[in-house]
Amino acid sequence: MTRLSNYFLKTLREDPSDAEVASHRLLVRAGYIRRQSPGVFGWMPLGLRVKGKLEEIIREEMATAGAHEVHFPALLPREPYEATGRWDEYGETMFRLQDRHGADHLLAPTHEEAFTLMVKDIVTSYKDLPLQLFQIQDKYRDEARPRAGLLRGREFTMKDAYSFDVTDEGLAAAYQKQRDAYERIFTRLGLDYVIVSADAGAMGGSRSEEFLLPTPIGEDTFVRSAGGYAANVEAYVTPVPDPIPFDGAPAAAVFDSPNTPTIETLVAHANAVLPRTDGRAWEAADTLKNVVLAVTPIGGERELVVVGMPGDRDADMKRAEVVFGGADIEPATPADFAKHPGLVRGYIGPVLGTEAVLGSEGTTGVRYLLDPRVVSGTSWITGANIEEKHVAYLVAGRDFSADGVADIASVRDGDPAPDGSGPIETARGMEIGHVFQLGRKYAEALGLKVLDENGKLVTVTMGSYGIGVTRIMAILAELHHDDRGLIWPAAIAPFDAHLVATGKDPAVYEVAESLAAELEAAGADVLFDDRPKVSPGVKFGDAELLGVPRIVVVGRDAAEGFAEVWDRAAGTKDRIAIAEIPALFGS
Amino acid sequence: MTRLSNYFLKTLREDPSDAEVASHRLLVRAGYIRRQSPGVFGWMPLGLRVKGKLEEIIREEMATAGAHEVHFPALLPREPYEATGRWDEYGETMFRLQDRHGADHLLAPTHEEAFTLMVKDIVTSYKDLPLQLFQIQDKYRDEARPRAGLLRGREFTMKDAYSFDVTDEGLAAAYQKQRDAYERIFTRLGLDYVIVSADAGAMGGSRSEEFLLPTPIGEDTFVRSAGGYAANVEAYVTPVPDPIPFDGAPAAAVFDSPNTPTIETLVAHANAVLPRTDGRAWEAADTLKNVVLAVTPIGGERELVVVGMPGDRDADMKRAEVVFGGADIEPATPADFAKHPGLVRGYIGPVLGTEAVLGSEGTTGVRYLLDPRVVSGTSWITGANIEEKHVAYLVAGRDFSADGVADIASVRDGDPAPDGSGPIETARGMEIGHVFQLGRKYAEALGLKVLDENGKLVTVTMGSYGIGVTRIMAILAELHHDDRGLIWPAAIAPFDAHLVATGKDPAVYEVAESLAAELEAAGADVLFDDRPKVSPGVKFGDAELLGVPRIVVVGRDAAEGFAEVWDRAAGTKDRIAIAEIPALFGS
Repeated sequence: MTRLSNYFLKTLREDPSDAEVASHRLLVRAGYIRRQSPGVFGWMPLGLRVKGKLEEIIREEMATAGAHEVHFPALLPREPYEATGRWDEYGETMFRLQDRHGADHLLAPTHEEAFTLMVKDIVTSYKDLPLQLFQIQDKYRDEARPRAGLLRGREFTMKDAYSFDVTDEGLAAAYQKQRDAYERIFTRLGLDYVIVSADAGAMGGSRSEEFLLPTPIGEDTFVRSAGGYAANVEAYVTPVPDPIPFDGAPAAAVFDSPNTPTIETLVAHANAVLPRTDGRAWEAADTLKNVVLAVTPIGGERELVVVGMPGDRDADMKRAEVVFGGADIEPATPADFAKHPGLVRGYIGPVLGTEAVLGSEGTTGVRYLLDPRVVSGTSWITGANIEEKHVAYLVAGRDFSADGVADIASVRDGDPAPDGSGPIETARGMEIGHVFQLGRKYAEALGLKVLDENGKLVTVTMGSYGIGVTRIMAILAELHHDDRGLIWPAAIAPFDAHLVATGKDPAVYEVAESLAAELEAAGADVLFDDRPKVSPGVKFGDAELLGVPRIVVVGRDAAEGFAEVWDRAAGTKDRIAIAEIPALFGS
Repeated sequence: MTRLSNYFLKTLREDPSDAEVASHRLLVRAGYIRRQSPGVFGWMPLGLRVKGKLEEIIREEMATAGAHEVHFPALLPREPYEATGRWDEYGETMFRLQDRHGADHLLAPTHEEAFTLMVKDIVTSYKDLPLQLFQIQDKYRDEARPRAGLLRGREFTMKDAYSFDVTDEGLAAAYQKQRDAYERIFTRLGLDYVIVSADAGAMGGSRSEEFLLPTPIGEDTFVRSAGGYAANVEAYVTPVPDPIPFDGAPAAAVFDSPNTPTIETLVAHANAVLPRTDGRAWEAADTLKNVVLAVTPIGGERELVVVGMPGDRDADMKRAEVVFGGADIEPATPADFAKHPGLVRGYIGPVLGTEAVLGSEGTTGVRYLLDPRVVSGTSWITGANIEEKHVAYLVAGRDFSADGVADIASVRDGDPAPDGSGPIETARGMEIGHVFQLGRKYAEALGLKVLDENGKLVTVTMGSYGIGVTRIMAILAELHHDDRGLIWPAAIAPFDAHLVATGKDPAVYEVAESLAAELEAAGADVLFDDRPKVSPGVKFGDAELLGVPRIVVVGRDAAEGFAEVWDRAAGTKDRIAIAEIPALFGS
């Protein structure tokens, strides 16, 4: 039994000024966590309790999956991260420091390198595999704008697991075991997840899925079809239409187009001046928009790239990052254009940098890529690479070609699922887990090989599996609260019962005291608000704020043998005979 | 039951090349830990088990002491450490880093500041006190030469507790509770500790004691008397003798002393040329040695100081550090002497920097301090501040005085205990715990005040209490091993029984399997070496190396219903009926 009269807790009436989301606001107000610096929190006893229960559920399911628990330091040397390229790739997001001897270290954002090296140290033969290892450990990421409390901190607790196998089939099996464990964990936590295909991103690898919680406040966008397709928006692949024969298509024609800086004004102008045979009006989708991007690959030079896409689409920078292998990407700046006078701003077209424009193969030295929808035979209105001139009836495959494809356009409701399972819809979600077939990238970089059945050295293949423990705690707080406070799911509630004794009658406190003991005997963890000088209103307010799912109020009615049991989630308050209450909490 | 055939473990036959001590060697060889960088280790499943058991014992005793568990980040902002002065004081031992916005952070070596600020945030009234908080958490210190494995790492796990009280009596009571908890913890671990008075060091405060484990390989020196006095050597205070009347003492006399660069040569020369009335020979203790030290206070300028002490003593640099408030101290260099031509090397005396030497009060601008034994009336042979000349019969209080006292001379067996409890002996020990009355230093620096009973704001007084968890684990490994491997005390052994099945007979494995199940049913944690293709010799070697205190060997004798039970600590191997074995492990 924990007595509130002697517990390290203080609830706040005011929201913390830096709290942007409900979980941050409530976890601070209810005395679970306290801010140390932006995105870095100290944990009070209530917070440690919830976090501990969450970790226990994860540990149990990791054991069922067959994973062994280990623990790595947060402080790691630079060299292994140098070998895998991540020392550079992580950029500013990685905390770096030097020791007194000038040696470089980092605070690990994830531990692929450390696990790989430990396994290299221990494992020599295929007989030692398969192997799954995990840890629950504090990680560090120097977020540009740490916000939203535990949802995105600079220090956070993660369960990260790694699998080690000789064969691709072994990796697939380990992946499935971890994936199943994640399903069990999220089910136990009552989380309504969606599993979506995810882009490999900077990790490099093969199969990768994210567990997302659909919610309008999610940071991630995903797409799904009624037919069962689901993917992170970065992983959505645009289906390529069949080419169209262009025999008999009208010849390309340059036309004057003053004052048409936007697709909208261009379409209006086209409808005024350009004939069309089928009687329909020109639309944005008939124009070819040419987006100029500045792409800076990891460790590389800034380069301009032009991407042509239907005028009713925009470039999606997150999708672009994936296509360009994690490069840093931004719209070209005036300074970029100044270096490339061949790019005529507002009038850029696919046949780049020529005076004569059509049929000529002049070049600006800028790579030109196309949206996958721009297949051979499609006809476009687009820039003529001459001030105040556009060109119409420009046919792909006849009048222009490209250096490659770039599937970076935005995805929207109604786009086709790539697996043919119907139109997709987009939705917002929060990432709650990630499973990932890394393949042999890390093992190759760090030399993790074992002897196979024939005595030959082979490189090990790996998987990586992560759950943000503190992030999940915040997500559960986001999902389970009302305007009075938190309402924890029973599986991770800090206590099973919050017992409140009210008034000043010692007899009431005696009844409450013995009820508390009976509840504990029935297997319930009890938080007993035994504070003698605190008003019932304050006690109720604290109880509702703290979020223990069931509150038991022992007051004047105790003389008649009754108490109230409040179910926070159901919103009910039932008068129940005290003698019957312990049975409600029996395990 | 844990099966060795499916456990993440590999034992090594060779000692790791960087291991200087037995615990480091054995914990790596037996597969408990693995080096990540100097002084930074990864934890394998066996290591986590032992560490977890140790933490559980500490948690239980902290709960009994009434302390609440919280948890702070390792990454903390600079400002609070700036406010208490520790940002500078810690020097190179503190890991420092900057975030992407250039803000300074540290990896906390201890958490006084963070706890003080959290309590300031939560506690407003004397009614909220007394309060004890603790955490078990990973700390960082950038040791110049991390060595000895877990004995002195750069990342290490610590239990640090802090107490908060309004009154000095409250602090004393909290201190006693923690001190009692430490006694219980070390007793449960079977550690034969000594509690010694400790210097406050850089922490600043009042009462402070260390729990030391006496051992010849200890890093600390302590002193104790048969009468019960015990202190860290830095905390030993030299008793001051009574002054001696100097009426009738011979007048001081300068004498030639060529080629007497050492106390030894000076004494020999004195016995050749200097008369003495009592017939005894001159000894080193009759000379006054003048040690020139360069003292650099925290944040201050390098300054020379001369300390006079009996010639049979040396300056103890650790004691000097305490006397000079944690300043950096080293012997003066030739460059220092070059700046102070008044200091005549080899002939320095207490009457400094004069030509005439005696009776004059010339000055070199260098502070002159004296050992507490050099009381008024004591007579000395010492330097005359003239090349190749010393002076004899120089009487303190008559012929020279000093700017102050510096109790920095080395302590040795036979010196008197300051409390009059008899002569002391010196011994080596390892620090296993530290309890410390910090007083109001941190609360003042960070503004931790509460309203007292009269509604007046008063500054809180604090205590700080630390146990190095990973260090204790190493110490236990140091204490409990033989040439075959570790021998854990039962309280923190990773398993209760290491069951080894030998040979290739399936019947033996079946018997072992069912014995393992029975042992588990009896409450024992069993590590079952079920590896079918490993030879008995290798299995025995692994079992002895791992250090589970009792090994059960099931082999051919199983057919007759017998097995062997090895007690690693006792060194016994008993043939016992298998049916009787579970009872040996009953809880």
